[in-house]
Amino acid sequence: MLYLIGLGLGDVKDITVKGLEVVKKCTRVYLEAYTSILTVGKQALEEYYGRELILADREMVEQEADEILRGADITDVAFLVVGDPFGATTHSDLVLRAVNAGIQYRVIHNASVMNAVGCCGLQLYNFGETVSIVFWTDTWRPESFYDKIKRNREMGMHTLCLLDTSYFFQRGRKIYEPPRYMSVNQAAEQLLEIVKNRRDEDTVCVGLARIGAEDQAIIAGTLQHLACCDLGGPLHSLIITGHLHPLEVDMLRLFATQPDSLQSLTTTDSSTYTS
Amino acid sequence: MLYLIGLGLGDVKDITVKGLEVVKKCTRVYLEAYTSILTVGKQALEEYYGRELILADREMVEQEADEILRGADITDVAFLVVGDPFGATTHSDLVLRAVNAGIQYRVIHNASVMNAVGCCGLQLYNFGETVSIVFWTDTWRPESFYDKIKRNREMGMHTLCLLDTSYFFQRGRKIYEPPRYMSVNQAAEQLLEIVKNRRDEDTVCVGLARIGAEDQAIIAGTLQHLACCDLGGPLHSLIITGHLHPLEVDMLRLFATQPDSLQSLTTTDSSTYTS
Repeated sequence: MLYLIGLGLGDVKDITVKGLEVVKKCTRVYLEAYTSILTVGKQALEEYYGRELILADREMVEQEADEILRGADITDVAFLVVGDPFGATTHSDLVLRAVNAGIQYRVIHNASVMNAVGCCGLQLYNFGETVSIVFWTDTWRPESFYDKIKRNREMGMHTLCLLDTSYFFQRGRKIYEPPRYMSVNQAAEQLLEIVKNRRDEDTVCVGLARIGAEDQAIIAGTLQHLACCDLGGPLHSLIITGHLHPLEVDMLRLFATQPDSLQSLTTTDSSTYTS
Repeated sequence: MLYLIGLGLGDVKDITVKGLEVVKKCTRVYLEAYTSILTVGKQALEEYYGRELILADREMVEQEADEILRGADITDVAFLVVGDPFGATTHSDLVLRAVNAGIQYRVIHNASVMNAVGCCGLQLYNFGETVSIVFWTDTWRPESFYDKIKRNREMGMHTLCLLDTSYFFQRGRKIYEPPRYMSVNQAAEQLLEIVKNRRDEDTVCVGLARIGAEDQAIIAGTLQHLACCDLGGPLHSLIITGHLHPLEVDMLRLFATQPDSLQSLTTTDSSTYTS
């Protein structure tokens, strides 16, 4: 059996009881290490599980999938993924390879950033398409994500922006390096550059960092405010709100460092709080 | 401290290790019992936790929130929610009351239907607004959800349809009754009635039941097919696909009871698989 097991978002104890039992009984346990990171590292996981983990970088999952699946028809192999195995990044390819090889698989779900952002009080069913914001370079400054945000806002929908975590393996594929992750500041700055000649600089946004961890941070405010505030270490996410329900406004006010300005925003921002 | 703890979707062991530790140490533990159900009941949870749970129905949460929060400033109280505490149903109101009463709160996340539906292979960031499909009566046949599905499809987005679980407490608020839950069959039938004069009867849809449980069921097919197939006990969800990526088609084929028809669908359905 191939088990795809979500680790959740915070620390070692965010794995489910079911997931932990499976980790302990499997012959080999891989840790997917390229789409996200826990606030704790591989070593903390190994100490907590009391066993060794095999780091699976992108190349390994794409090119050595047969090695990961080896023997999984007669024994149990676990593939650990931060968040949920089918969250922000799916692992369809590995599942399809398993099925084609006659190997059964099972998914043990967990929280992912895609649902845990609900903790800021914005209702998940009011989110439109999710977008990714990538690091700009001097010569490459894609703005396509802005059109999706705009389209979501026109329909009153919130937009979850997943922030770039590129260059995870800077010095070679076998070295576990901290990623170059985009902060809410950087995402807000890039968005401000796009919107600077438009009228939506006052849109209510929410910056989230280390959701689910002891020291998670959530700040609600304008893009300009979020471009300056310090949310600490990775991972960061950004939400651009659409139409806000009064209960959503009440929740966001808990996370507004300048509650008064948030109050005024909700009345001046035409797309919000019009009911 | 008020702990809002997600139980995940399957059985007693889908709680996180962190969540279980908190449940064991809290003075009182409430089980939210009106928005969803686990495939196991209150008794199974009590046996697994080795402690009594207090059932919190909608009336209690809305009208007796002070009782739930009683003493939570000096001791620990847990509020258990199937799925994630901020998943399909948020518990903003309870959080706001706690904050206003000077009580700290903490969320322990878990999988919710909002992210676990990714297990069918459709990519979560390609989902648009989530809709709810309610039971029709002889005199009340709302169709507004269809417009949202249509709007999502026009943009190539998938739509998650949360199916009605009304009449949870039919015989009085203190009696834990199995809910009247809508099946994929019923949802598909209602949708077919709306679309019968339109051309989108062949849209690829996905029915999901008991996601995360040992006996979860996923079937991909047309609405007409889903109106007939048997997915077993609750809870059910339905997805109406938008534009399908080839990898998504490959995954859905795993769940197609008539793979050939799914193959032909993807070429005749104009909104899908056009790349």
